[in-house]
Order: sequence, then C-alpha cells, then structure tokens
Amino acid sequence: MEKVSQATTRVNHERLTQLVSAVFQKLGVSAADAEIAANALVAADLRGVDTHGVIRFNPHSWYVQWLRERLMTAQPNIRVVSETASTALLDGDRGMGMVVGHRAMELAIKKAQAGGVALVGVGNSRHYGMSAYYAMLALPHDMIGIAMTNASRQVVPTFGREARFGTNPMCFAVPADKELPFVLDMATTTAAAGKLELAARLGKAIPAGWALDEKADQTYDPRVAQKARRLLPLGGTREGGNHKGYGLAILVEVLCGVLTGTLTALNANQDPRGHFFGAIRIDSFRPAAEFKQDMDRLIRELKSTPPIAGQQRVYVAGEIEFETAEERSERGIPLHSSVLKGLRDVSEQLGVPYDLE
Amino acid sequence: MEKVSQATTRVNHERLTQLVSAVFQKLGVSAADAEIAANALVAADLRGVDTHGVIRFNPHSWYVQWLRERLMTAQPNIRVVSETASTALLDGDRGMGMVVGHRAMELAIKKAQAGGVALVGVGNSRHYGMSAYYAMLALPHDMIGIAMTNASRQVVPTFGREARFGTNPMCFAVPADKELPFVLDMATTTAAAGKLELAARLGKAIPAGWALDEKADQTYDPRVAQKARRLLPLGGTREGGNHKGYGLAILVEVLCGVLTGTLTALNANQDPRGHFFGAIRIDSFRPAAEFKQDMDRLIRELKSTPPIAGQQRVYVAGEIEFETAEERSERGIPLHSSVLKGLRDVSEQLGVPYDLE
Repeated sequence: MEKVSQATTRVNHERLTQLVSAVFQKLGVSAADAEIAANALVAADLRGVDTHGVIRFNPHSWYVQWLRERLMTAQPNIRVVSETASTALLDGDRGMGMVVGHRAMELAIKKAQAGGVALVGVGNSRHYGMSAYYAMLALPHDMIGIAMTNASRQVVPTFGREARFGTNPMCFAVPADKELPFVLDMATTTAAAGKLELAARLGKAIPAGWALDEKADQTYDPRVAQKARRLLPLGGTREGGNHKGYGLAILVEVLCGVLTGTLTALNANQDPRGHFFGAIRIDSFRPAAEFKQDMDRLIRELKSTPPIAGQQRVYVAGEIEFETAEERSERGIPLHSSVLKGLRDVSEQLGVPYDLE
Repeated sequence: MEKVSQATTRVNHERLTQLVSAVFQKLGVSAADAEIAANALVAADLRGVDTHGVIRFNPHSWYVQWLRERLMTAQPNIRVVSETASTALLDGDRGMGMVVGHRAMELAIKKAQAGGVALVGVGNSRHYGMSAYYAMLALPHDMIGIAMTNASRQVVPTFGREARFGTNPMCFAVPADKELPFVLDMATTTAAAGKLELAARLGKAIPAGWALDEKADQTYDPRVAQKARRLLPLGGTREGGNHKGYGLAILVEVLCGVLTGTLTALNANQDPRGHFFGAIRIDSFRPAAEFKQDMDRLIRELKSTPPIAGQQRVYVAGEIEFETAEERSERGIPLHSSVLKGLRDVSEQLGVPYDLE
C-alpha cells in the first residue's frame, strides 16, 4: 500500500470557520447559512471526527461540486410539508444538509419547548455531516437531542451478499450537571466508512467483522473493502449479533427514509438524503436539575469502573470528543497537508483570501 | 456439564393463558390485570422468546414469589407523576411490569392519537417481560411503537472489569402493508442473558465476544459466564465496536432510569425497574397508506438480497418471530417438561385446575 505523509499543521478553528464560510458565500450561499454550514463542518474537526469535517472540502469535493453544478441548492426553500404541535415533516429542497438539518433541529427544540417533546423528519435534503452537531443543539435547552440520517448503500444485511442500505448513523445527546454531556454518535456498522480510509492511509489491516470483499467473503484489506462497498452491520457476524446492527440501520432508514418519503436505501445514486431529529424537554418528566444530578451519578459510576489489563480508564460516550475539542480549540486543529492543499486550491479558485498557514 | 432432556409437549396457547391468568388471580391480581399479564407472558412463548415467557412461572419464580411476599403489588395504584400533552411520567407502585407497561403504552398511544407523538416514562415498576409486547400494541393504530426497560447489573462497559448496567433491551415496531411489520427487539448486549442459559443446557461453548469470566478474561463456558455476570455490550470487543452497544445500553438507562428516577444501574439489588414507551402516529408525517406501501418496498428489497453461501435467505427483524407465532398458534407451544412441572406445581399449590397435558 502507498505510504502517506502524516505531516499536519495546526490551524485556528475560528479562522478555518471564516474561510469555509467565505467559500460557501462565493458559491451562492447566504451569509447566515454559510456560517451555519461552516460551524457544522468545523465542529466535526474540533471533535476529532475528521472524516466529517473539512477533509471533504476541496475543488473536487461534493459540497463544492454540488453547489457549483446546482445539484445542491445554495438558497433552499425549506418548507413545512405537514405539521402537528409536536411533529413536522420538512422538504429540504435539496439544500445543504447542514443548513436544512440545523433549521429542522431548531424547529424540534421550539416545538419541544411548548409541548414537551417534538420529532421532525426531513426529506429531500443532502449529506449533513456529523450527527452530533444537531443533537447537541438541544443540550443548552436542558433537552435530550436526537439526530439521524440515512446514507448511501454500502452495508449488507445479515446473511446477505450485497449491500442494501447505508451506514445510517444515530446520535443521542443528554445533558449532565458537572460532568460532560453524554453524546453517543454512532454509525450502525461495526466501523464507520471513514475508518476504512484511515486504515488504508496507514497501511493497516482491518479486523474481522468490518467488511466483506466483492465475493462476500471476509476481507482484512481496507482497499478491497472500500472497493467492494460491503460493510458489515454492528456485531460483525450473526453470532456476534449483527442482526441487531442490521435492525438499527433499518430503523434509521424507516425514520429518515420511509417517514419522509426519501428512501435512500432504494436509490442507486447517493442522493437525496432524509434526516430525523428529536428533542425531549427533560422537565416535562422531572426537574432538569435533579435529572442532571442523576446523570452525574450514573456517569461517575461508569467512569469509576476498574479497567481491564492494558487499559487506563473507562470512558463515557462523547468524553474523548469533548477532550479533543478542548485541546483543539486551544492548540488548533491538526490538518493534513493534503487537506490544507484542498482548502488553498478552492480558496484560490474562488478568490477567497487564504490565511490558514 | 449436565445433560438436560429436551422432552417437550405442545400446549394450546389459549389454555396456557387461562391457566396463568387464573394463577395470577389466586395471588390477588384483578381479573382484567391477570389477563393482561398472562397475555404478555404467553405472547413471548408464542413468538419463540421462550426466556421471557412461562419458563419463569413456577412456585419459586419471581412473579409468583414476589406476589406472595408482597414484594410486587398485586393491585398497584399506578399514578401520573407529571404530564404534558405529549409526555407522561408514571409511578408503577411496584406493580407487575406487564400490567404497568401495558397501561403506560396505552397512554402513549392515546396521547399520540391526539398530538402526533407521545413518550411515557415509568418509574418504580418491576420486570416487564418481552419488550415487543408493548411496542407492538402501537401497530393496529398505524403508529410506530417504542418500548425499553432497564435491567439488573450484569454488563461491563468497554474496557471495564466489572458490571455496571443491565442488558437494557430496546424494541421498535413499525407497521407495513402486505408485508409483516418490522419488529426489532434486542438486548444491547451481544447476546441476551437467556442465550447463556440455553447454551449451558445444551452443553455448548459460547462464542468470543459474549461474556467475560470473574477475572474479566474472555470465557467460552456459559456456566462460568452465568456465574461471573460480566456480559459484553453489542460489538463484543472495542475493535468490534462494543463502545456502541455500551452507549446504547446507557441511552436505555437514561430514558428508563434517569428520566424516571429509577436508576436500576445504581442499585445493588435487582429492583425496581424503569421503562420507557413511545408512540409515533405515522399520518402526522405522511399518509399511513403511503408509508406502509414504502415499508413493503423496503422490506422486499431487503428480503430479495442474495444470501451468502450456506444460508437460505435474508430476514427482516421480527420475521422469524411472526412465523414462529403462527406455527405455535396452530400446533401449540412446545414446553419443556421442567416448565410444565413448574406450572403444574404452582397450580396445585394454589388450587387452580391444571388441564395442559
């Protein structure tokens, strides 16, 4: 396998956000929406979810290409298709998933403030990046946030030879008091697609239970896995419980696809996408202060678990990402030279001043 | 390992329900509640979820012992602690989980009929059996049903040596048109606790990724695993993604425990339990008929996947259980002689006519 340089440069996250926002504006996006989209992308880089951040931002990346070719609507007319006090279905008008998703999650929060809980489905949207960005918008409101999206076909059902659905991630964000919030953001496959890219770059074998080759046999070669597009659901094998990961992926497709009319699993091409958002106002059940204190008790109990040999500590979902975000906010986001080149190229092409290095 | 006879007798499910209901009534449960509880238990046996049915019904089983010793309230005063148009928190008064759960799910359905979606948390309840029973109550109403419960400590967090939470199952039921409903009912561990019992009875080794021994090393012996009470979250190992199963289990504890004030994960003993129910009225998003036709399309696409070598077909969640229920409704439920003995013994002790064999 080819060897890739690991040369990285630390980049200030605010300057990075400004650059990305400026590029989006040059591509026709309004200032307000460009800021939302840039924040959502850079939030992924801050949290260490590098596969969902500015790595996908270069002259040949979807976001840029789609806006240029008008395959993605720069100024979408996001409209309410149906609505009740606690639910809504939006049509995203093929807008940027980050903008459409942000709007939908804000609507869920507003409805939950009034009614205790709200669910908002979105059809006819596009790739929305990192699920945690949306779910976490609920946290300052003392709400539990939920965000899911369907994704393009590259996962096989249990016992299946061929891909039938996507990595369909789900995220749940729950506030705590003095402890960090609980933020579970997971693809419903054993490993997210980005993990294959990472293994391929590092020239590492992938473990059993991640992916099949084109003959539907287990593969350990990440390049073969990327080409075959036959990822395995969480659980890896049937005896490892992969019918559960398969079921969770279909649940995401039901909520993001069937409920919205945007069944990405049945599309040969990768778009459009459907999303699903939820907000649960904690104090419609019990006082938020009590709830958050009990979250602290639960989180401390988990973190106090003695670790197995060879491990230093037991983590809670989201903890590593919060620590990464704190470190990267202070020291900058380490971007690979190839990612920086993409940002430089797209800036030059569009006449946006480039000041990251 | 001991060898256990596999002698089973087919028993009519209606007669079985009547017997269980009669026993509950002798133990002080009202006729209406006894029927609900008996239906919920026998529904598990019908669906092939034998670990959650009448196997736990003998003179020494929880349900019977707890009612006798008044550790479970025969005629609970189930009350609303807090309520909005689309949410409620109930106190189960330590009643039978089946009765409390049924009442709570009915409330969720009623609220969703009015408001589009509803979530109902339950604190201070007891073991509720099979999650699918509750979630599936939503199906005839063209709603998506959700049911979850926390459970006693026997699962280790990722990298942990000691158990910190339960197998915390979650269930989602979604109606289709001509196809069978999608019903995903899963423990958030690689394998439900009942699978260890089954392996132990059959004298079979358990696969890697299911459980640790008392020193927190991988074990393949189901008896050792049962004693150690250190099950692994779905994913099995860290590289197999068990931080996801761990996260899902904590999500269930958040919704069933922290939101209700009944944090079973922090209790040394096994009770009480918290539950969480949801109902989503499909036509608050799009017409139910259209939704169900799209469910059929999705389900057929999944079922049409060519199988890998050695497998006959690709299933959809719930399919095997529906087929089992149909077969057992016609031919009777195969009960092991030891289970029949338990039913006979408890009937004799309480003076209930026994007519199963």
